[in-house]
Amino acid sequence: MPSLILTALEGLPEVVEGDDLPALVREALARTGIALADGDVLVVAQKVVSKQEGRRVALSGVEPSARAIELAAVTRKDARLVELVLRESAEVLRAKPDVIVVEHRRGWIMANAGIDLSNVDAGGGHALLLPEDPDASCASLRAALADLADIGVIVNDSFGRAWRNGVTGTALGVAGLPGVVDLRGRRDRFGRELRTTEVAVADELAAAASLLMGQADEGRPVIHARGVPYARRDGSGRELLRPKSMDMFR
Amino acid sequence: MPSLILTALEGLPEVVEGDDLPALVREALARTGIALADGDVLVVAQKVVSKQEGRRVALSGVEPSARAIELAAVTRKDARLVELVLRESAEVLRAKPDVIVVEHRRGWIMANAGIDLSNVDAGGGHALLLPEDPDASCASLRAALADLADIGVIVNDSFGRAWRNGVTGTALGVAGLPGVVDLRGRRDRFGRELRTTEVAVADELAAAASLLMGQADEGRPVIHARGVPYARRDGSGRELLRPKSMDMFR
Repeated sequence: MPSLILTALEGLPEVVEGDDLPALVREALARTGIALADGDVLVVAQKVVSKQEGRRVALSGVEPSARAIELAAVTRKDARLVELVLRESAEVLRAKPDVIVVEHRRGWIMANAGIDLSNVDAGGGHALLLPEDPDASCASLRAALADLADIGVIVNDSFGRAWRNGVTGTALGVAGLPGVVDLRGRRDRFGRELRTTEVAVADELAAAASLLMGQADEGRPVIHARGVPYARRDGSGRELLRPKSMDMFR
Repeated sequence: MPSLILTALEGLPEVVEGDDLPALVREALARTGIALADGDVLVVAQKVVSKQEGRRVALSGVEPSARAIELAAVTRKDARLVELVLRESAEVLRAKPDVIVVEHRRGWIMANAGIDLSNVDAGGGHALLLPEDPDASCASLRAALADLADIGVIVNDSFGRAWRNGVTGTALGVAGLPGVVDLRGRRDRFGRELRTTEVAVADELAAAASLLMGQADEGRPVIHARGVPYARRDGSGRELLRPKSMDMFR
């Protein structure tokens, strides 16, 4: 029967700007004893990609705008962090004490525009922005490993949800596998047409990988997955974004 | 390094009302060659539990109320289905063509109160309601298998999300593992206190299992998971529900 096997790669070092991420992944795969096969998927934590891409910003160099200062007072957050959130966002959806929910420039509805202050460095005082274009980051890593196998790549992050407690791993970027699989026209075991027509495959896999990554000091930012039971294709993280015109809960 | 291994149980028959679900699961575990170990988790599709619990309703016996008829006109749905949705719901949040989003009596914000018309039977004309109390269903299956090992059990279903396309596997009921893990006070690799404080572990595992279950004619409703890297405890699906007072998007 089908199995899905997720394995954390061993001994990936702290990644810094300009590192050769494909080379580090190759070394970690070898260390873990994994030979990539066609259809395997690598799920990479957003933090690693952001660091490699130099998306680290010193808060001391950020000049908060009047709007950021105002929003910082409402949300009780650092005005320089709020300034970065505003620069990364298309729209602020909710602001109240300890909470800013925005539409990120790239369409994700999320807290703090995905900007993170934890796990950044020991000195503190820095923020880490999301990768500039996670789909491109995925495609780039996929291409750099294409000599090994035809794999899929996901860059994931932890997202809150509107009505449920706790965060879950969610796909920001996708390459080489579907973001969403459309089952329209497929039939169930009794020949009836399915009512659930779209499955967010990349989000389900991002969540599975997140379980193994941990959130704290585990240091397991790259997860190898084998046995994903969906056909490969050129998918994207954009497929997972509901268009604003279809949004009932903004 | 840590691995998470998910395996679909082999040859589970179509479940009907009153079936001995623990016995069917025992047989399927044996057929698949899995000996349960402490800390393993079984993820069971809601449909199987609902069928076993007799939550199947013939639409021909449902008398739609005036409100159901009105809402059916707005949503272009069968008025008898809408009547069942209303009976299962505490509140209707959104209604428009092809969409009803409600708060289920048990607190889930979801489309159609989770009522399903697919995969029910070949004759059609029946609806399948969610299990009456999924946490109790999980606890019951867990207790019935306790002689084999101290396992966790999740009953999952596919949920849509406010801002993202596609459904993902989501935990309705939980027993023997955390619904949400609270990381407050834990520190990251650099000793900084974590900002993300709650992880929806049961939802992440529900999503992972959903990947293997498939949505159509695969017939893989029970998934075995080994290697969940969180300590066991008496969790529940209720932990995953955001209280209405904290809801910013209703």
